[in-house]
Amino acid sequence: MRTIEFWYEFASTYSYVTAMRIGRVAAAAGVAVRWRPFLLGPIFKELGWNDSPFNIYPAKGRYMWRDFERVCEGEGLPLKLPPVRFPQNGVKAARLALAGEADGWTPDFTCAVFYANYAEQRDISDEDTLRGLLSRIGVDPERAFAAANAPANKEALFAQVAEAKTRGIFGAPFFTVGDEPFWGNDRLEAALRWAKA
Amino acid sequence: MRTIEFWYEFASTYSYVTAMRIGRVAAAAGVAVRWRPFLLGPIFKELGWNDSPFNIYPAKGRYMWRDFERVCEGEGLPLKLPPVRFPQNGVKAARLALAGEADGWTPDFTCAVFYANYAEQRDISDEDTLRGLLSRIGVDPERAFAAANAPANKEALFAQVAEAKTRGIFGAPFFTVGDEPFWGNDRLEAALRWAKA
Repeated sequence: MRTIEFWYEFASTYSYVTAMRIGRVAAAAGVAVRWRPFLLGPIFKELGWNDSPFNIYPAKGRYMWRDFERVCEGEGLPLKLPPVRFPQNGVKAARLALAGEADGWTPDFTCAVFYANYAEQRDISDEDTLRGLLSRIGVDPERAFAAANAPANKEALFAQVAEAKTRGIFGAPFFTVGDEPFWGNDRLEAALRWAKA
Repeated sequence: MRTIEFWYEFASTYSYVTAMRIGRVAAAAGVAVRWRPFLLGPIFKELGWNDSPFNIYPAKGRYMWRDFERVCEGEGLPLKLPPVRFPQNGVKAARLALAGEADGWTPDFTCAVFYANYAEQRDISDEDTLRGLLSRIGVDPERAFAAANAPANKEALFAQVAEAKTRGIFGAPFFTVGDEPFWGNDRLEAALRWAKA
């Protein structure tokens, strides 16, 4: 089975939309998904941005929030704006999502975090919130946090970001099929077609 | 009949794709199109960019050229890369396109210019090239240039750019249906649905 890699950042708005639909549409296409949480902050810094471009460029930001609203409505996805903060700090969530790969709970956890951020106006950098989300999907919070905070896992997240940079990834969601790059929720279908071809 | 406004800049890659398909898909949807040439340069300057963001951010640029190639292939559109320059200076072409609105040749001229830029590797800032394109679509080049260079027409292009800025337009192609904004060739269908609803 061909595989698509799904690169996402927990602060990213459109990554929410993709996270909530990629399981379904990839399964329908017969394509496997590897979920690859990473961080955009270090990549944005190299581009000279200390904040989300949606905050730096207000016209772009205003447009994005309106478009995001329409896209969520089109997908039937719950949305409560504004989030408690934008962008939220997703480092702890990303470490957890990466640690979950071994036991297979990364997709469920990822969807729970995005839902908390964009449908429930919750603080996804808060450890108690994250513990609650882990419990909700049937994962022991103590074990999960221990795995997430292990030095090797923290380093693995650095490596994930470094790989993203090397692959030319500059935004999220992003998809790779081998070396072929696809940027944005709008390109998910094209990426799946590429994986099948 | 509801109307969609199509804002485009002659240097813009994805505007080529939209220009070549908007007539067909809007007609099929029963929506009228107002073609609104404008300039992104002055808008980018206010964002702090003295060049296309695709040149300023190389990873974004590399991705765009690859994606553009795929999108053109998907639309069956001829493409010859690289263009003679990127971005090309589209001021003269924009003045002409605006002047053509009175006599109705703006769409044909626009498509001819985009084709020259992206399918024929021609210099669209060159007056002889533009004269040749005007002749090709049956428009008298002398009359067209006289109308384009009239002070009122030059001012009308400034006003068009000012209106784009006021409407929060920060990229191209861009569509407006009343006050509802849609950015990018990928949003053309959504804009047409909005116009019909």
